[in-house]
Amino acid sequence: MSAIRYELIKTCKQSGARLGKIYTPHGVIDTPIFMPVGTQATVKSMTPEELKVMDARIILSNTYHLYMRPGHELIEKAGGLHKFMNWDRAILTDSGGFQVFSLGPLRKIVEEGVHFRSHLDGSKHFISPEKAIEIQNSLGADIIMSFDECAPYPSEYNYVKKSLERTTRWAKRGKEAHKYPEKQALFGIVQGGMYKDLRTQSANELMEIDFPGYSIGGLSVGEPKPIMYDVLEHTTPLLPKDKPRYLMGVGSPDDLIEGVIRGVDMFDCVLPTRIARNGTAMTSQGKVVVRNATYQEDFTPLDPNCNCYTCKNYSRAYIRHLVKANEILASRLITNHNLHFLLNLMHEVRTAIKEDRLLDFKKDFYSKYGL
Amino acid sequence: MSAIRYELIKTCKQSGARLGKIYTPHGVIDTPIFMPVGTQATVKSMTPEELKVMDARIILSNTYHLYMRPGHELIEKAGGLHKFMNWDRAILTDSGGFQVFSLGPLRKIVEEGVHFRSHLDGSKHFISPEKAIEIQNSLGADIIMSFDECAPYPSEYNYVKKSLERTTRWAKRGKEAHKYPEKQALFGIVQGGMYKDLRTQSANELMEIDFPGYSIGGLSVGEPKPIMYDVLEHTTPLLPKDKPRYLMGVGSPDDLIEGVIRGVDMFDCVLPTRIARNGTAMTSQGKVVVRNATYQEDFTPLDPNCNCYTCKNYSRAYIRHLVKANEILASRLITNHNLHFLLNLMHEVRTAIKEDRLLDFKKDFYSKYGL
Repeated sequence: MSAIRYELIKTCKQSGARLGKIYTPHGVIDTPIFMPVGTQATVKSMTPEELKVMDARIILSNTYHLYMRPGHELIEKAGGLHKFMNWDRAILTDSGGFQVFSLGPLRKIVEEGVHFRSHLDGSKHFISPEKAIEIQNSLGADIIMSFDECAPYPSEYNYVKKSLERTTRWAKRGKEAHKYPEKQALFGIVQGGMYKDLRTQSANELMEIDFPGYSIGGLSVGEPKPIMYDVLEHTTPLLPKDKPRYLMGVGSPDDLIEGVIRGVDMFDCVLPTRIARNGTAMTSQGKVVVRNATYQEDFTPLDPNCNCYTCKNYSRAYIRHLVKANEILASRLITNHNLHFLLNLMHEVRTAIKEDRLLDFKKDFYSKYGL
Repeated sequence: MSAIRYELIKTCKQSGARLGKIYTPHGVIDTPIFMPVGTQATVKSMTPEELKVMDARIILSNTYHLYMRPGHELIEKAGGLHKFMNWDRAILTDSGGFQVFSLGPLRKIVEEGVHFRSHLDGSKHFISPEKAIEIQNSLGADIIMSFDECAPYPSEYNYVKKSLERTTRWAKRGKEAHKYPEKQALFGIVQGGMYKDLRTQSANELMEIDFPGYSIGGLSVGEPKPIMYDVLEHTTPLLPKDKPRYLMGVGSPDDLIEGVIRGVDMFDCVLPTRIARNGTAMTSQGKVVVRNATYQEDFTPLDPNCNCYTCKNYSRAYIRHLVKANEILASRLITNHNLHFLLNLMHEVRTAIKEDRLLDFKKDFYSKYGL
């Protein structure tokens, strides 16, 4: 039996978007959902309790980073990632593939796996599809990923074809190596670059292996948005209706809404947490770069339409002061707001699906956000 | 009428330490008390709510830093420091004197005040005793400080004498300039270096001017601890029994206990917050440098005898990982613990005074802490 179960509750009559639930060993997730990223076993600057206040149901953590530091054996000894980081709701880990491939000249791909050097100390490592699963088995996340290659954009047709076929072989090897399918749901990752026929080939090959969920990788890697939406629109209908679909690494408000309309259930992105630490807030009226002098004497909240802790208690002027003074509380307050904003956006998206008015919601949201 | 009132509840029969209460416009403070430092209108990495969980009743903020950034006029426009930083309990501000004098070659002292250059942008500034009060009037703290010179250690007798006499004249000028004595209690600051007769002279001159409370400055500036305790023991009995006594810039656990035994009511120090950001915890068994490799697989809390949020939920191994990975949560968790530790220490000290057993408590605490 699979570790998770997806329940399709309804599709939006106006947009075709899906409303669903994913039942995991660590709680139920209402979909579509945005997953905050906790790369190094912490969603930067936040406590688990703060994530619960904003009703985060699942977070993502990065296998490559945890393998490097503190090491998956240590986390296994600690009782697994949930216990180590004090998070008792669901966790998804990526396979480490994306990070390893991002190392560029520091890595070499062969059929067996990838040779690479640590970004921390230059030490030599080798990750195979089996090793990626072994590490994720030690970490113990509820949803884990097959080891895949995310081809860069742009890439030649022939390269992408060879790459996705290897990704298929790696997915099969990973599934065979997976020790706890009843506790951790292993997803296959659809690749194929911007070539629709290759996306079809990848999806079909992975569905033949059969996974409890499917990720869509290799999008939002530098291609123009219309191309991304077009490839996505081609890909999601290929996937089984009774399994969750996860669009990897996507998290701007418009991409979330466009992804949901095209049938995606799960998203993650470092955007809200990263721009927060740089002093930028996402608000219902668009981005607010609170560091700017224009907010020096602005005693209104980051977002007048927000009821998060930050907006209920602090002014733009105060937060700007904290940003300028390099105070940790600045990162905390803006991160808290940005994550609340995206989780609340997804809550509103789910409500709009329920009420068959997601296209109306999108139009209204875009006009206020300035899109 | 003064902005604050001190009530002496009792003195410890074993040690002579004072148990009291200070009634302020923003709540009652049980003394002796440790005040967390929020230099730039934030106790580094903490929210006000977290400080309330550990029962902080009063925090300190630094006039020099706020004058420089974001500026006292801005904070006044925001409705004062309490509102600006979302802290509705008591605040104490220093005069800025200590920071200005610490600028070294960037400043020049004259009778009228101090000329100096900003540590941020090199711009020229002048702070007089009147200006220091004007700034603090804008900030609106419950307890404010006279502009004083803290003579370095060691200093010649004649220099210290001239300096304290100028500090007396500045204290008088500050009192005359103070606009809101009914809302903000202005303390005089006893100086005199390590010379007991000069401490006596300073205390007498300040008491003649008459303040609602007295600070003891110029200690813990590099002198050996026995000298500090000796000068303190000479100074506190000179001060009125019905006014609070504040020993500035002191916060190691032993200095707090020794200060209380010598009749001090209030303390502040950056130590607990500063060493936290460096990865060091104060515990009932002494300091724990959690960054050290020895804690790599230590799945016990920072302090097994602590019931703070950090110790209830996280292991040394996890916190060490966060420290090594430069994660903000590391600073949060250790700062939270260290402040809880010192505030709880003062709570235990107050209980020991109440029960006339502070010397017993001290002996027991020192033996566990390794002092």
